[in-house]
Amino acid sequence: MTAYFIGIDGGGTSCRAALADATGKVLGRGKRGASNILTDPDTALKHIEEAARLAFEEAGLAPDLSNTSAILGLAGNNVGDAVNYVKARLPFLRSDIVSDGVIALQGAIGDEDGAIGIVGTGTVYIVRRNGELHSIAGWGFQVSDLGSGARLGQLALQESLLAYDRMRPMTGLAEAILREFDGDPEKVVDFARQAKPGDFGRYTPKVFEFADQGDEIAISILKTGAHGIDDALDAVAAMTGGKGRLCLLGGLAPLYPPYLAERHRTKLSEPLADALTGAVELAVKAYGSVVEDRREARG
Amino acid sequence: MTAYFIGIDGGGTSCRAALADATGKVLGRGKRGASNILTDPDTALKHIEEAARLAFEEAGLAPDLSNTSAILGLAGNNVGDAVNYVKARLPFLRSDIVSDGVIALQGAIGDEDGAIGIVGTGTVYIVRRNGELHSIAGWGFQVSDLGSGARLGQLALQESLLAYDRMRPMTGLAEAILREFDGDPEKVVDFARQAKPGDFGRYTPKVFEFADQGDEIAISILKTGAHGIDDALDAVAAMTGGKGRLCLLGGLAPLYPPYLAERHRTKLSEPLADALTGAVELAVKAYGSVVEDRREARG
Repeated sequence: MTAYFIGIDGGGTSCRAALADATGKVLGRGKRGASNILTDPDTALKHIEEAARLAFEEAGLAPDLSNTSAILGLAGNNVGDAVNYVKARLPFLRSDIVSDGVIALQGAIGDEDGAIGIVGTGTVYIVRRNGELHSIAGWGFQVSDLGSGARLGQLALQESLLAYDRMRPMTGLAEAILREFDGDPEKVVDFARQAKPGDFGRYTPKVFEFADQGDEIAISILKTGAHGIDDALDAVAAMTGGKGRLCLLGGLAPLYPPYLAERHRTKLSEPLADALTGAVELAVKAYGSVVEDRREARG
Repeated sequence: MTAYFIGIDGGGTSCRAALADATGKVLGRGKRGASNILTDPDTALKHIEEAARLAFEEAGLAPDLSNTSAILGLAGNNVGDAVNYVKARLPFLRSDIVSDGVIALQGAIGDEDGAIGIVGTGTVYIVRRNGELHSIAGWGFQVSDLGSGARLGQLALQESLLAYDRMRPMTGLAEAILREFDGDPEKVVDFARQAKPGDFGRYTPKVFEFADQGDEIAISILKTGAHGIDDALDAVAAMTGGKGRLCLLGGLAPLYPPYLAERHRTKLSEPLADALTGAVELAVKAYGSVVEDRREARG
């Protein structure tokens, strides 16, 4: 009987699975819908299992989940109740749930020491030093995640209201944003009061677009955001001593570098592989020898 | 029959009334509990009426609300439904509901042109130019009110988490704040996710205290806050042309001046009178001649 390994990269929009053999060679992949273990754990479980079966099918193999070991990188992995509920119901021989950041780190920098910064709707920075993981920021847009998409979008609304009140020169960005609210600041306020990170984040592409055209408010917002990211990367560099690979991941990773401090921009590398690859590597690392041991014991 | 005028200054914690004669001379005052027309309009109505009766009693007069004209300065005056509900049920001969800012302006600068900045849990700036009122900021802490108590408190939590993550040097302020959350950033996040302006604002006195002792984070927070207020006062000055009285009111008004730009600090005056006095002045101005006219017509 061959030992199989599954890596899962799951989040609020999709659940992706990769199947590998004991050497880590990827044999097949599968993709299904959202696997948010916090808001809908049962659907998450269904999509995890379906994505795993699809990976077997793509590899031309009969799905055999109960003989497969898996590492799942899932957002919301820090909420104990949700994790315990899902863990107890997973269909695999052995499995563990880690954060989406941990599989992204493994994918991006492999087995060496180094660091990643995930810069999307939120931000989080993960450092591996002497094999140990440390995380920085990631506490949410209310009191953390400076430079994240949520914070940039929130700043865009704030600066638009300041322009409305003549505390800033009115620019194209502020005009475009106010127009979306029919020029009515009360509507901006109503929106902001209830906005989730992703709601604020929807204004972020506009900020980068207008900054490209020299918009004064947009540029100032991105300077503020980049300053927040520079601060975090300084803390990262203090931990790594500047050694090892440093990768920016996430939706804003391709957009930010021109705004970052020289000292960081020149240190950035492309990720070696994606988070899904990281998950399957971790599955082989975690359970490969265990399975080998069992097989030897049985043999 | 003598004409009486009532001013009401009502908000989330108390409702104060002042009774005056047609010359504006205050005859008596009364005070009752909260009059929040948004969250509890019926209690607000009850406290408004009781405070008005107490003012009559203090003046040694039998309460005669149905022959009294009133101006009520109430927080939440911009929410039409609440205002209409309360307006239809007020016990006065004539009355109008204006914002708490409008009565504060009248109290602070009297009948002349000029401006006030109310700097408390929120911020709002009101300018009277050629007799017309204009307001600036006051859109809430999510996207406005830079320098307000809510924003300062929120910044204090943010900077404490940054210190926790070694993005700032750990200072006494950050230590004191983290200690309140048992040193657990998750608890800060849970708090911040649900915090109302006043919840954030409770950390603001600490910021001023520690800044006095030279705390680096506290001073940087107050510089950021003061910068926000300076920007607003620049917009105010652009409207007033620097003419007329400029008063800071609200809980942070005594604390902020040392941190403000020289160009504003030197322009600040003490308010002529409080908001309640402003309300009663407005009542006499609005209805004094009307009542006189009616009396003449009757006479």
